[in-house]
Amino acid sequence: MVRVGIIGVTGYTGSELLRIIHAHDQVELTYVTSHSFTGRNLSDIHPQYSGLMEMVCHPFSVEEAIEKTDLVFCALPHGEAMHTVPLLTRAGIKVVDLSADFRLKDKVLYQEWYGKEHIAPDYLGKAVYGLPELYREKIKETTLVANPGCYPTSVLLALAPLAHKGMICWETLVVDAKSGTSGAGRNPSQFLHYPECTENFRPYRVAAHQHTPEMEQELGRLAGEEITFTFVPHLVPMIRGILSTVYLKSVVSMEEDELWSIYDKFYANDPFVRLLVPPLMVETKYVYGSNYCALSLKKDSRTGRFIIISVIDNLVKGAAGQAVQNMNLMLGFEETTGLEMLPLRP
Amino acid sequence: MVRVGIIGVTGYTGSELLRIIHAHDQVELTYVTSHSFTGRNLSDIHPQYSGLMEMVCHPFSVEEAIEKTDLVFCALPHGEAMHTVPLLTRAGIKVVDLSADFRLKDKVLYQEWYGKEHIAPDYLGKAVYGLPELYREKIKETTLVANPGCYPTSVLLALAPLAHKGMICWETLVVDAKSGTSGAGRNPSQFLHYPECTENFRPYRVAAHQHTPEMEQELGRLAGEEITFTFVPHLVPMIRGILSTVYLKSVVSMEEDELWSIYDKFYANDPFVRLLVPPLMVETKYVYGSNYCALSLKKDSRTGRFIIISVIDNLVKGAAGQAVQNMNLMLGFEETTGLEMLPLRP
Amino acid sequence: MVRVGIIGVTGYTGSELLRIIHAHDQVELTYVTSHSFTGRNLSDIHPQYSGLMEMVCHPFSVEEAIEKTDLVFCALPHGEAMHTVPLLTRAGIKVVDLSADFRLKDKVLYQEWYGKEHIAPDYLGKAVYGLPELYREKIKETTLVANPGCYPTSVLLALAPLAHKGMICWETLVVDAKSGTSGAGRNPSQFLHYPECTENFRPYRVAAHQHTPEMEQELGRLAGEEITFTFVPHLVPMIRGILSTVYLKSVVSMEEDELWSIYDKFYANDPFVRLLVPPLMVETKYVYGSNYCALSLKKDSRTGRFIIISVIDNLVKGAAGQAVQNMNLMLGFEETTGLEMLPLRP
Amino acid sequence: MVRVGIIGVTGYTGSELLRIIHAHDQVELTYVTSHSFTGRNLSDIHPQYSGLMEMVCHPFSVEEAIEKTDLVFCALPHGEAMHTVPLLTRAGIKVVDLSADFRLKDKVLYQEWYGKEHIAPDYLGKAVYGLPELYREKIKETTLVANPGCYPTSVLLALAPLAHKGMICWETLVVDAKSGTSGAGRNPSQFLHYPECTENFRPYRVAAHQHTPEMEQELGRLAGEEITFTFVPHLVPMIRGILSTVYLKSVVSMEEDELWSIYDKFYANDPFVRLLVPPLMVETKYVYGSNYCALSLKKDSRTGRFIIISVIDNLVKGAAGQAVQNMNLMLGFEETTGLEMLPLRP
Repeated sequence: MVRVGIIGVTGYTGSELLRIIHAHDQVELTYVTSHSFTGRNLSDIHPQYSGLMEMVCHPFSVEEAIEKTDLVFCALPHGEAMHTVPLLTRAGIKVVDLSADFRLKDKVLYQEWYGKEHIAPDYLGKAVYGLPELYREKIKETTLVANPGCYPTSVLLALAPLAHKGMICWETLVVDAKSGTSGAGRNPSQFLHYPECTENFRPYRVAAHQHTPEMEQELGRLAGEEITFTFVPHLVPMIRGILSTVYLKSVVSMEEDELWSIYDKFYANDPFVRLLVPPLMVETKYVYGSNYCALSLKKDSRTGRFIIISVIDNLVKGAAGQAVQNMNLMLGFEETTGLEMLPLRP
Repeated sequence: MVRVGIIGVTGYTGSELLRIIHAHDQVELTYVTSHSFTGRNLSDIHPQYSGLMEMVCHPFSVEEAIEKTDLVFCALPHGEAMHTVPLLTRAGIKVVDLSADFRLKDKVLYQEWYGKEHIAPDYLGKAVYGLPELYREKIKETTLVANPGCYPTSVLLALAPLAHKGMICWETLVVDAKSGTSGAGRNPSQFLHYPECTENFRPYRVAAHQHTPEMEQELGRLAGEEITFTFVPHLVPMIRGILSTVYLKSVVSMEEDELWSIYDKFYANDPFVRLLVPPLMVETKYVYGSNYCALSLKKDSRTGRFIIISVIDNLVKGAAGQAVQNMNLMLGFEETTGLEMLPLRP
Repeated sequence: MVRVGIIGVTGYTGSELLRIIHAHDQVELTYVTSHSFTGRNLSDIHPQYSGLMEMVCHPFSVEEAIEKTDLVFCALPHGEAMHTVPLLTRAGIKVVDLSADFRLKDKVLYQEWYGKEHIAPDYLGKAVYGLPELYREKIKETTLVANPGCYPTSVLLALAPLAHKGMICWETLVVDAKSGTSGAGRNPSQFLHYPECTENFRPYRVAAHQHTPEMEQELGRLAGEEITFTFVPHLVPMIRGILSTVYLKSVVSMEEDELWSIYDKFYANDPFVRLLVPPLMVETKYVYGSNYCALSLKKDSRTGRFIIISVIDNLVKGAAGQAVQNMNLMLGFEETTGLEMLPLRP
Repeated sequence: MVRVGIIGVTGYTGSELLRIIHAHDQVELTYVTSHSFTGRNLSDIHPQYSGLMEMVCHPFSVEEAIEKTDLVFCALPHGEAMHTVPLLTRAGIKVVDLSADFRLKDKVLYQEWYGKEHIAPDYLGKAVYGLPELYREKIKETTLVANPGCYPTSVLLALAPLAHKGMICWETLVVDAKSGTSGAGRNPSQFLHYPECTENFRPYRVAAHQHTPEMEQELGRLAGEEITFTFVPHLVPMIRGILSTVYLKSVVSMEEDELWSIYDKFYANDPFVRLLVPPLMVETKYVYGSNYCALSLKKDSRTGRFIIISVIDNLVKGAAGQAVQNMNLMLGFEETTGLEMLPLRP
């Protein structure tokens, strides 16, 4: 059994890592840390596991991490992870970092969108962007994975096949994304106060969301050119799920079935990407609680525009599930180990 | 007191008309009809009004309508209204029709999108499209108003000022709309079955919604040219509210405050359109249960695209409230009479 | 026009008072105060009213209240109201206090359940408990009304007719109450954090809720004896509504229709209490957004137990609506003025 | 691998059985039947499994069941199962029946509460009531298990320890239960129509629910006497979860910690019953998607009443999960095999 730890187990990413690792038969959880719950039991923090999972939270210490773990998931907030991850990596511990701190390759962009200077810019180049569908081989060989953001996972999987083929007319690209509320984290706020959040639908950070440069970086890499596009996220009164509706025109004329072939081929060996056969159309519930991404493809013949719609569970494929998928690759396990739970519906 | 009737009072549009007319002090409800609930009391159909509103549903009869009413709201399904409305109009009764039957000017388009031949095409030219912000003066003088669809109301109010000025680059126009579930009506279906609808987010009729030609007709009239655009509706797990996110490029370069000025001037005399001052951003709850439309305007400087977001309550400004607003104009009342209820929030 | 003020307009009770007073044609809002939003506009606090209601929040001052108002609604938290209300009352201003501070007659009970000493115990005897169905005449003549709690309103209206007749076997009485989330107020908390609140059902303060002594006091007064009973509240994932399921045995044998007659007679002249005719059974949506209380009565013949179920909107009949009802009585208006809005459903 | 089948795979119990069996490593699904979807693929019926689970639905045939399976789950509606189950049992196939048809021992009660005559009364005595916490040893040896109803599972686990000790004063017993909507099944209805179900809380079948005699039978068996009690179910606007609040007085005086000891001892060897340590209090989300039952115990010292609150996921411990737990026992597997998935929260 490989020994794994979770740094910063308090939030939703932490609880979801616990849930998934619990079902993984090749790793053993040996170390969990929490700043705010030091000395408390996991079940005090995540009472749904009360009686099912007993382990005391420690304050973070590199020495203890070295002693107790072979790989850690770093679930600290952005801005904190960049202080901790280098310590672990240098000590030879494999790291899957779930923050935004090592996703961008350009420290200037980081400062611009996250509002603080990056203190470990050397690691930006070393980290592998942890989207297995794009970087599987690199992930297998790295010791530091930057786990993608939830929106980027949903959008990149929707666009990668076309971007890779250079077929997107970038100036037509609009992404209208909708997310459940758990993506905003566990801290109470007016924005997520139940009476103001339910029976309500809202856009937020319109054309200003910090995941934008991450998507542009990766799409640009696929396309081999610098690109920009319009991204608008919205908040849906539900817990889990991201649905991204992507609008674009192709640089070449193409029918819907040609589009389908491109996607089908691109994802032929990706166990977690499901292309839905029309008339079936994606719903967020088709992936709820699971590590799958489902895609629907549609051509609007009246305008010549393509509409690609993707769904993921933001806490699984958009965070903890993908982190375990990356861990599986880094440790040489079967990619799907511990991740075959089916979607929960109804 | 002017005597009004409701033809087809059984559905959500019916119950919402009852709620609003109850608070209107210049009209009196004198006649209600229902096919499925003939002989039953209103409170059997809409039990929330039990003990508060007692009136027996009749089968529809033109003679009775003539005898008992001065104006009727026709809340029949599309395909049925076109049989009934001409009978009423010919008899001199003023009609606000809430179906789709008299919104399109072109019977060919009607057949194409609604799947049946129009049996009263003569009336297509006579009906006035009941969006007071565009056709106030014509509504005052007509005897037949075609009350707009819920999506078209939200989209047209978002686009009218720019369309009217000829400033929209039409081939860039994408409308991503999100609606609560009450717009789909009162009949139970798998699609709206609670366990499959809550905690779920879904697109539907992607680039194929029947409200599309209605919007294109009206935008085309404003622009003075034939236009097409991409429209994708989504279902939000909530009861009421439509939020439309509109993406477009302008034919001329413009800053956000110039856009604002155009809208501010265009809607200066429209009591139900509210332009939100940034950083306030629209939410569907800002108009819940009320007849208002709220608008947010945003320029995405990185791509030069404009993003206009509108919210309405689909059952009020998107249906029954707008119908009463039209009635007020047709009867010479103050436009806001009976419609000043504030949004319900939380 | 009578001039009214709202002390502490920031919370949900405040926003609901604004909504109701806006529709009231015999009073004028002349003064609003807020500690946290001093100097800000009402629409900054309650953005749903943006563009619809402009008024600046002042810091509270007795002098200003005296100068500007004839009656005030005090919507301060318990513990604060007892400092403010006596200042107003002494100055001759009529007060409807929506806190818990003047509901209990016994300062010892207050200290026991609210955890602080009462600093104005003289006023406990002077305040009239503002449940019009029980104290209409006294309310008309007082200058200080203690507006009932939301749970007590729902439970007392369910039990008053039987308690008044001395027919309840008190040791059998169990009240299982369920409330929407807005009753817990506007401050964000883990308890009301959307991702932990939706798709979840929870009991809280089991047999320990601070509304218990208020109910026991009023039931005891009706019965003419000291009583205790078991009260357990639960939180429902919805915004508005309280449903109380009341279980009891009668001291005399009785059929369901006899029970019905007792209630029907007791509430014959109460415009806001609706007794539902079986098989219609209460739902919280039957009173949503309105000032009504609806009641269903049932005998469980197998056990001889009676089950009485009441529903109210906790923010309306359970708070702001009842406060306006009390104001109407205190000012000699028709009791229903401004309160005839129908329930919002769907 | 033991070969298992599902008779009637179309509903929510069917989809949940599929989800759980998929994660079970000692059985293999070899046969599924559906009346309404004969010839269709599982993923047409349960699109969340599209691309993940391909198997064609057959019409039911005893011969095919005999040939292909060692054990079947019968997920037919009550009234249908009694026709099918005897055919299977007689053929030597082990059966876990999820309907109500073999739960009651008394065919007269069956007719009274389910409105039809029982056509296989001989089997009423042979079936073992499938609550492992009460009948583990009998389940291991039977070939026919009557899987308990969802409400009975939640209520019996809340009461068994006290009933078994003869400590309940039965005439004081009141059970106020609250259920999510999936318990009502997959067929669309007005009752479960999203716009009428969300933001709404409702009692139903007040003191008349068909699960009542099932609970009385089992409690009576534990107590060794005939008993009746009051049971009122309510519908919560959520998908999954039952919370039962149980009120009773004990026949002997007892403190809360004594009650705790009784429960702790009774459930010492039951892997799926979790007793929560105060102040932790049950929430339905603590068992969401899992096979656990969680219990909170409370004494109301003011009235001497005990309050016991249980939560289960109605589709798992209340249906499919418990069925698999029974299967594990019948097949000699570890009781927890395939059932260790943790609750999904948030």
